[in-house]
Formats: sequence, C-alpha cells, structure tokens
Amino acid sequence: MENQIQITLPDGSIRTFPKGVSGLDIARSISEGLARNVLAAEVNGEVWDASRAIENDSTVKLLTWNDTDGKATFWHSSAHLLAEALEALYPGVKFGIGPAIETGFYYDVDLGDQKFSQEDFKKVEDKMLELARQKEVYARTPMSKADAIAYFEEKGDEYKLDLLKDLEDGKITFYSQGNFTDLCRGPHIPDTGFIKAAKILNVAGAYWRGNENNKMLTRIYGVTFPKQKELDEYLHMLEEAKKRDHRKLGKELELFTFSERVGQGLPLWLPKGAALRERLENFLRRAQVRAGYLPVVTPHIGSKQLYVTSGHYEKYGKDSFQPIHTPDEDEEFLLKPMNCPHHCEIYRSKPRSYRDLPVRFAEFGTVYRYEQSGELHGLTRVRGFTQDDAHIFCRPDQVEEEFMKVIDLVQYVFKALGFNEYSAQISLRDQEDRSKYIGSEENWDRAEQAIISSAAAKGLNTVIEYGEAAFYGPKLDFMVKDALGRKWQLGTIQVDYNLPERFDLEYTGADNKKYRPVMIHRAPFGSLERFVAILIESTAGNFPLWLSPEQLAVLPISEKYTDYANEIFLMLQEDDLRGYVDHRDEKIGKKIRDAEVSKTPFMLIVGEKEQAEGTVSVRKKGEGDLGSMPIGQFIALAKEEINKNLLKF
Amino acid sequence: MENQIQITLPDGSIRTFPKGVSGLDIARSISEGLARNVLAAEVNGEVWDASRAIENDSTVKLLTWNDTDGKATFWHSSAHLLAEALEALYPGVKFGIGPAIETGFYYDVDLGDQKFSQEDFKKVEDKMLELARQKEVYARTPMSKADAIAYFEEKGDEYKLDLLKDLEDGKITFYSQGNFTDLCRGPHIPDTGFIKAAKILNVAGAYWRGNENNKMLTRIYGVTFPKQKELDEYLHMLEEAKKRDHRKLGKELELFTFSERVGQGLPLWLPKGAALRERLENFLRRAQVRAGYLPVVTPHIGSKQLYVTSGHYEKYGKDSFQPIHTPDEDEEFLLKPMNCPHHCEIYRSKPRSYRDLPVRFAEFGTVYRYEQSGELHGLTRVRGFTQDDAHIFCRPDQVEEEFMKVIDLVQYVFKALGFNEYSAQISLRDQEDRSKYIGSEENWDRAEQAIISSAAAKGLNTVIEYGEAAFYGPKLDFMVKDALGRKWQLGTIQVDYNLPERFDLEYTGADNKKYRPVMIHRAPFGSLERFVAILIESTAGNFPLWLSPEQLAVLPISEKYTDYANEIFLMLQEDDLRGYVDHRDEKIGKKIRDAEVSKTPFMLIVGEKEQAEGTVSVRKKGEGDLGSMPIGQFIALAKEEINKNLLKF
Repeated sequence: MENQIQITLPDGSIRTFPKGVSGLDIARSISEGLARNVLAAEVNGEVWDASRAIENDSTVKLLTWNDTDGKATFWHSSAHLLAEALEALYPGVKFGIGPAIETGFYYDVDLGDQKFSQEDFKKVEDKMLELARQKEVYARTPMSKADAIAYFEEKGDEYKLDLLKDLEDGKITFYSQGNFTDLCRGPHIPDTGFIKAAKILNVAGAYWRGNENNKMLTRIYGVTFPKQKELDEYLHMLEEAKKRDHRKLGKELELFTFSERVGQGLPLWLPKGAALRERLENFLRRAQVRAGYLPVVTPHIGSKQLYVTSGHYEKYGKDSFQPIHTPDEDEEFLLKPMNCPHHCEIYRSKPRSYRDLPVRFAEFGTVYRYEQSGELHGLTRVRGFTQDDAHIFCRPDQVEEEFMKVIDLVQYVFKALGFNEYSAQISLRDQEDRSKYIGSEENWDRAEQAIISSAAAKGLNTVIEYGEAAFYGPKLDFMVKDALGRKWQLGTIQVDYNLPERFDLEYTGADNKKYRPVMIHRAPFGSLERFVAILIESTAGNFPLWLSPEQLAVLPISEKYTDYANEIFLMLQEDDLRGYVDHRDEKIGKKIRDAEVSKTPFMLIVGEKEQAEGTVSVRKKGEGDLGSMPIGQFIALAKEEINKNLLKF
Repeated sequence: MENQIQITLPDGSIRTFPKGVSGLDIARSISEGLARNVLAAEVNGEVWDASRAIENDSTVKLLTWNDTDGKATFWHSSAHLLAEALEALYPGVKFGIGPAIETGFYYDVDLGDQKFSQEDFKKVEDKMLELARQKEVYARTPMSKADAIAYFEEKGDEYKLDLLKDLEDGKITFYSQGNFTDLCRGPHIPDTGFIKAAKILNVAGAYWRGNENNKMLTRIYGVTFPKQKELDEYLHMLEEAKKRDHRKLGKELELFTFSERVGQGLPLWLPKGAALRERLENFLRRAQVRAGYLPVVTPHIGSKQLYVTSGHYEKYGKDSFQPIHTPDEDEEFLLKPMNCPHHCEIYRSKPRSYRDLPVRFAEFGTVYRYEQSGELHGLTRVRGFTQDDAHIFCRPDQVEEEFMKVIDLVQYVFKALGFNEYSAQISLRDQEDRSKYIGSEENWDRAEQAIISSAAAKGLNTVIEYGEAAFYGPKLDFMVKDALGRKWQLGTIQVDYNLPERFDLEYTGADNKKYRPVMIHRAPFGSLERFVAILIESTAGNFPLWLSPEQLAVLPISEKYTDYANEIFLMLQEDDLRGYVDHRDEKIGKKIRDAEVSKTPFMLIVGEKEQAEGTVSVRKKGEGDLGSMPIGQFIALAKEEINKNLLKF
C-alpha cells in the first residue's frame, strides 16, 4: 500500500495512516479531547508542528502541556505572540531572539527611542490575549536565503539579518501568525487560541549576542498558560517562593550569613542556624547508631596522592581548589572534595573478615568544592558543605539488605521532617553499551536487581532511567516535593565497584580467600546546607517543633510579672524546652507580633490572672489562642508534638 | 667590718657572715638538716658549688633536690661519677661531654674496641654506688690552659683537647673526685655520698659534636637519686608511662589511626575514638548551653585577606600551609589556623548594643597548622586538630565576671574527667617594659586585676608570671597533674585587645557612642586530640564510665545462653548503656580476658543460674566480682556511677 505509512505510538502499538498524516490527525483519530490538547508532535525524536505532514513510517509521540517539550513549544509560540503584540504597540520595533526558557520565555527587542517599563506590562498582556482570542494559526513556510534576506532588509531588522548570515540556504523557515512573521526553525503550537493567560514578568538589558561590544537590547520575560487558573497558581507560587527564599528567611531568622572577608560561598552559621544543624545532626546520629552505623572523624585535607589513588584528582583536579603546599617539604595536600577516600583508608586500617561485614562508617564530613562565583546561590550552591555521609562496605550478597535498610532510614528521616511526598529515580546502566562500566556483569546485574526490588519492597514511587548510572555503579536518588509543588533532589544511595578496586580493599571469605567488598555511598540529607535551605523554603521557616530554634516565647504582660515569667521559663528549660523571655518594656501586642515574625511556635502570655492561678495563656502559631492551662499541661502538649515526629528509629 | 659580708636570703632577710662563707656554711647556720640536703647554692643568680667561698655581699638561695637547678647539679655530678666508674671498668676510655638533661644525664664516651651493652649496665651501676659510698669530694681546681692541655695530652684524650681549643685561658677549671679528673665548668654537689641510687637507662650512638663526619661515640644515659625509693618510683613511672603511651593504647583500643596516604599528623578517628570524642563534645556542649554560650559553625578555610586583617598571615604565613589558589579566579584561601577571625566576622554581622553583651560564640572548630614531620607525635603534636573554642565579646567591666564563669566551667570539666590536681599560671605584662603591649593601660590594669581576683575567688592554686602575657592581652593557663605525677598544660583563658581593633568591632554604649568590646578566647580542653591523648595516658585507657567506648560486655557462658544474653543487652541499650555481646564460640575465661584487655568497665556473665533467676553476674574492672543481681539493679548501679561525674553544670 504505497500511500500508507506505519506510525508507532508510545505504548508500542503500530497503526497505519495515509502518507502525509499530521500529529493532529493522529490525535483526532484517538479522541477529539486529545486533539484539543495537542501542542506539538515528537516525530522520530524531533519535535514538529502538530500540523506538519509525516511522509514516512515513524515513531510518534503527541505532546501536550504535560510534556516538557509540549510546554517549551507553547512558550516559544508565546514569544512570537509577544512579538506580534509589541509590533502592534511599538511600531518599528526590531527583534533579536525569543526562546522558551525553563519557565516561560523572553524576547530581546530593540525599541529604538521608545520606553518600556513595568507600567507597560498590562498593555502588552492585554494585546497578547486579544490576539490569542483570534486563534491565529502558526503557519510554517520554507524560504530561500535570498528571499529571507530581502524580507528583513525591507523590514529593516538588522538583527534578523545578522542571524541569517549563519544559516544555510535550504534550511530556512519562516513562521507567521496574524500580521507577524518571524525567521524561525519552529516548531509551534497549532494556533494562538491555546494561550489563555499571559503575564509579563520582568524586563532587563541584554547585549545583542551576549557581547558587550554590541548594542544593549531590552529583554522582556513573560509566561503564559493554557488556563487562567494555572497562571494564578504560578503567580501565587512565585510570590510564596519569594517569601520563602531561604536567603531572605535565613537572614530574617538569623540562621546564617556570609562574609566577603571569609569568602563567597562559605556560609557562617549563626547561633540559631548552628543549633538547628546540631539538632539535625543529632537526630540522624541517633538513628544511625540504632541502624548499626559506626561514627568516624577524618581530616578536611588529604595528600594529593590520596586523590590520585581515588581518581578524583585526575577527574576534578584542574577545576578544583588547587593543591596546598607546605613551607619546606615536598608535600602537597588537597581540600577534601569527598569523604570516601578517607573512609577507605579506615577500612584498610585492619584486616576484615566476611563475618565483620557489613561495616558502616558514618561522618558529618565537611567537603570543599570549587564553584565559579557566579554559580553560587545561598546555601544550595556553596563552596563548602557538610555531607551526612556514610559508606557501607559489604559483601555482594548483602547489597539488597543494605539497600532496604538505607531506604528505611531515609523514609524515617523524611517523615520526621514532614516530607510526605517523595519519589525516587533509579539510575541503571545503558542497555546498549555496557563497555563503559567498571565491575563484573554479575555484580551489576545483582546490584541493579537489588535496587529495583528493595525499592519495590519499600513501596517507593520510582522511575527507572537507563544510562544514568555512574561508571562505577547504579544508584537511587530521592526527590521530595515541597508545599509549593517544587521538586528538590535530596538523598542518594549509590553502589560503587570502583573505589574498592582502586584502594585494593579486601575481606577474607569463609574459604580463606580474599574478596573485594562492595561500597555503598549514602546521604539522606545530601548536604546539611542544601537540606536546611530546602527545609526553610518548604516550611517557610515554620520548622517542626523539635527543630525550631526557639520553641516558645514567654511574654509577661508587664514588668510586674517578670519573676513569674522567669520561674515558668526555668521549669520549661528543665524539661529541655527552649526559647526566651521577652523582658523588653514593650506592649504585649508588640511582643506577640515580634514572636510571630521570628516564627516562634508557642507564645506563653503571663499576667495577673495567670500568676494568681499558676497557669500560662498559650497561643500557637497558625492556630491562635489555646486558652490558659497549668504549665505542666503545656509541657505535656509540647512534648507530644515533639514526639509525634521523633518516633524512635 | 671589713671581713663581714651581707647575705640576702630568699625570704628577704639579710644576714651577716664572714667573708669567704660558703653556701654550706650558711645552710649549717640555719640547720644541720638543711646542710645535709644542700646540693648547690645560687649566688646572685649563678649556680655555684655549695662549698665555694663567697667574697662579697650577695643574694643566696640554697639549692636542694626540690629545685630544678639542684637536681641538674646532682645529675651533672652523677655524670662524673659514671665517668669515674667507666674509667675503673674500661681502662683507656676517653670522654666527650657529659651533661645533665631534663631527667638524668648522659656521657658520650669512646670505649675503643671494648663493647658496652645492656648486660654491662648492672656492673656500671654497682661500681657507681661503690664509689658513691666512699663519699668522694668534688674538688674544684682552676687550671691554666697550658696545664689543662698538658694533662689531657698525657692522658691521650683527644675529645677533651678538642673542647679545650674553644676555651679561654683563665676561665678553665678541673673537677676531681676520687681517681677521676675532668675538664668542667661545674658546679657540683659536695660529695658522691649524696648519690644513693643509680640506673643506666639506655645506650645509643652519637657523633662527636653532633657532626656525622666525626667519630660515632657511645652515649650512655643514666639517672640517679638521693634515695633508692625515688629511683624505684621513677622506674615504675617509666614503666607505667610506656604502658600508657597514648599511641600504643590508641592502637590497642582502636581509638585512632594514621594513614601515610592521608598524610602524617592527620589523625583518622576510628569508631570507638570518634564516639569518645562525640561524648566529650556533647558533654561540653551541654554545659556551654547552660553557661549561655551560643553555638556557631564556620568553614575550615578563609580568604587570605581575612588573615591579613587578623595579622595571622603576616605572623605565620610563611611557616604554614601555603595559600590555596582557585582554578580561574584571582582568589586565595588559607586553611584556618584559628577560629577567631571567623567569629569576629560573625560578631560584625549585625549591630551590637551594650545590652547584648556579653555574647559567647562556641565552636568545635577544626584548625590546621603546619608542623615539621619530625615534630609530629601521636595526638599531642598534629597538623589538624579540633579546638573546643569559644570567644566571649564583652564590655571591659564584664571581664572579671566572665573570667569567673569560665573558671567555673573549666573546674566542672576537670571534675567530670577526674583531674583533681591542677594549678594555673597567670601571665601578666612585663613590669619593666609596657611599650610592647596593645590596649589601654586602664584596660590592662583592670583585666590583670580581674584575672588575679577571679582566680583567687575560685580558690585556684596559681603562680603569676610577669612578662609572659601575649602582646594582645593577659591570660590564665591550667596545668593538670596526672596519676603518674606528670604535668600537662590544658585549657587556657586569654584576654585579647588586638582582634577587636583589627576587625573594628564595636558596640553602642548607653550613651549612644561606639565602644570596642574586649574579646576573651577560651578552651577548657585545649584541643580534643591533645586532650584525648592526656586522658588516655592519665587513665591508662580506663576512662570514666560515661566516656568508655564500651561500658559493658555481656558474656554468655555458652551458646545456650545467647538468647538470654541478647535479651539482657536490649534492655541495657534501652537504658542508653552501650557495649557488646560476646557471641564467639570461646571459653568464658578467654571472653573475660579479652574484655579486660579492651578495658571494658563491666562484664555481665550469664549462664544457667542467671537465666533461671533473671539476673546477671557482674564483674567490675579493677574491683572484681560484685556478685549476681537483677538487671535493674545493675542498671541503677551503672547509672549512679555515670551521674557521679556528670552532675549538671
């Protein structure tokens, strides 16, 4: 059947269509509902216009708003819509480039003498929506280079002409919608009608082609959505994220600071932050003791030779902090970028038998990795951070059980910290090419299977990614979802066949022969710095009670109740509750507001009535007045809330 | 009175004696008992023979065994006695030099073809004592250089002739006792009869004049005492010290190790040592929270600029670990040699008012300082160590109160760790030259007075050393005495006027003007590494129960009682007691011995009787069998011992 082609769909089914069928046609053949949502089509791995004719047998995936490439197409088309709106409002505007970005899009434009600022955003948004309502079709037209040049010469757009210089004749396409035509490779969504909500977010300067010798253009950032509700949610999320920015809250809550004189990307933990860290460490330390981990402590430097042995020097040496020389001996040290080589040396410090395994060495190890100053960001991208690191040395037959135990521990940690939505990515070998991996086929098969089945046994919500394993072993990474729906990568569990080889690690088997142990790297938090950042952003600084820097504030209504407030506070301290007495000569309203700002979970207000009755009036953040109660009752209430999260591991 | 001179004694009294009086004469004028103990006399600051005539008014101190210089004289005379014995036993022996050293003395000798080894020690000791019993007088004879050369030419001793080359005619003296004469500046004890006990300790090779191109002589080390009992005690102490060497015990008890590949002087803390450290840290941390310290955490590096500001770079830069460069930016960092600059930056991170002071920042901060590899020694001399550091920023009028509080804390720490004998040195300005100190006269006076009076108020046993203060402030250092009578320098409290200046630290006074805070550095342990070393040596690894790596061992008599042993162990763990169950298929005697070797404080032996009765048979290290008791009773007993040392601060 000459005019028929075979289309393979993502579920593996193969269907026959006439030659020239489009993604949209295929969607329609499935359901009208799907067709209304198709933004583009992935044809043999390449994203095409949904309306573009398919001429040969192909693998096709229909892309909607739920696909990353669907969204990107939507936003790229929205950049064209923005351009159309600008051309209507700012005659003579010239255009640079207008790509989709991670969230939304921008267009670099040259407005000549015309001004563009915050006040103009609404006008542009309205124009975009007006044009969108006209359901203008995005039409693709192949174009010769000569015709393309002629078009932009006539239009007088030197930027497009500049772009055309680099393009090859025969591979040039124009896209038009309404009155606007652009030089563009595509693809685009079917028509502007899909765009139901638009927002201009920001405006900034950007040199043409990123070169500061060129003219400064105006970069206009925007975002669009297929539903107004989604835009509202997004804007709300942005607003919330701004309020929760850990750099802002970290400063307000006095958790950490940076000093230019100490160095960029090197956090200084202020008392409240240091105490929070300490509590996180102690919490995990206790759980680890119960899980059979052994603490170790190792230095923050190691001889260069150590990292030559581990392979880290060859791999990262040039891009890292450079070696530390000593004054008069021929020695070189490196700041440690990871703790594993040190733990391997501890493993080697005595002979190990198969009966001794697994051994699990745990350390809150501070490591230093060089990052460009432009890449630094609060606590999430730093130059020095503390890993809640551990290395398990076990026999190959113990990998599955150890994985199970680590997953238990990670789940316990997430629960205690209120992360209830999480998933895991399992990274395995490339199924095609196995030559690039170190370690025996048999051990890999066993470990991969162990990871998959332990994740299943623990009921983890997982995705498997082939080809994402490190060359030295497969791994499992946890992602948590925060209150704003943002995903964060957290803990990791990683099998390693490489370091045991490089450090020549051994154990004596039951047969008295020497064997290589398997090494498992794991870190439930990942890094304390990053984890605290995520905790701040996801809780907006309202930490679980057991972690709160100040659990309570005792607020005497006036100076007359100072003694009673102090007496109460001592009792609370005896019961290991922490906080402060607000002794300032301020109105009670002010004291309450300040305690709210510093996100203190409980306020205990004491005045004449409370003193007479031996009670406290309790206000709980987020819940309001809990009434007055004897101090013992409050302590019981606080303890209950603490223990709720801190069940024994 | 022409023939009379005035002698000023140490108590300030001035007494009149005939010209030519000797130290011994003065002693006799006081008491016969004193005369029998006088070894030498310090005349106007110079040590003389006790029998040497004093011709002018002088300040005289009679030196006995209790004076460092008295001991040194005794041991130098003992070197001559050793030489006399050797000359009697090894005809033709030639002599190099024979000084007193910190404990005892040595003589470098050329024995020609004659052998000298361990088996000969007794023979020499006996000969020394035989000669000593003859109470040979040490006689001083001034000698012309020519006569001296003639004497040793005749004797054929090329070493003494070599020494004579450098001596000035008119200043040469010989000392003789019995048949032995030596070229010697002196002084010496009155006669050999003072020497009642002698021990040859060691023999080693030593190049003449320390130059490897010269002949290798035999260096014979010895020690002597005025009483046999003192020698016995000394030898016992040596034996004990050897057994307690923290490097040896650290290995046996698996507390720490070193790896050439990580680097010399960089300890790796093994699980038991890391847990010990952790307990020490938590112990101090808890006390510090109660004492109003605030925890902070700072990075292990800082920009070079930070240390230029603090002055550390100028002072130590060249002899330290060299700066760390970054790959592509013009930045330089240093491994931090101290935590103070970081804490100053934290102080600067917000405005401070006089009402906020004192603020006390505490950090277990790991610092790195370069030491020559030859200087490294176990945990007492390392290249990286963790200070139990804190910096108190206070007003000048708060120095005394803060000192008092720090002394309280240090005393609490010492008590919990069983250091009951300690003293303190107060280091003040040079009384003559005050130009070399930074900070106002008024503040110094106040701080010195504050240290002296707070030490007195706390009943510290102190010595004051003038001129020992740092240029930036006065200080107080604690010395503890261990079970072997050895003294160790531990914690320090130090006032600092310099860093507040250099970092331009300020607080706002009640008058709204800016003032400089005073900084107090303090560290009760000093460094965790050094402290653990001292703890190991002073306790011989028998740590207080609360610190013990393994508090108990449950020892089932046979496999039949495994379940009961496990059950018991779980109950102990629930009560936060730690240890292990010895599940090995070994005889109970062997299990007990192994628990003894690893210094486990309690052994709980379980067999048929214990299982039937629901009890454990308790053996306590050093005390033996405590009989059988219900598990609850044992737990109460263990808790009581723990709490004995860990009273709340």
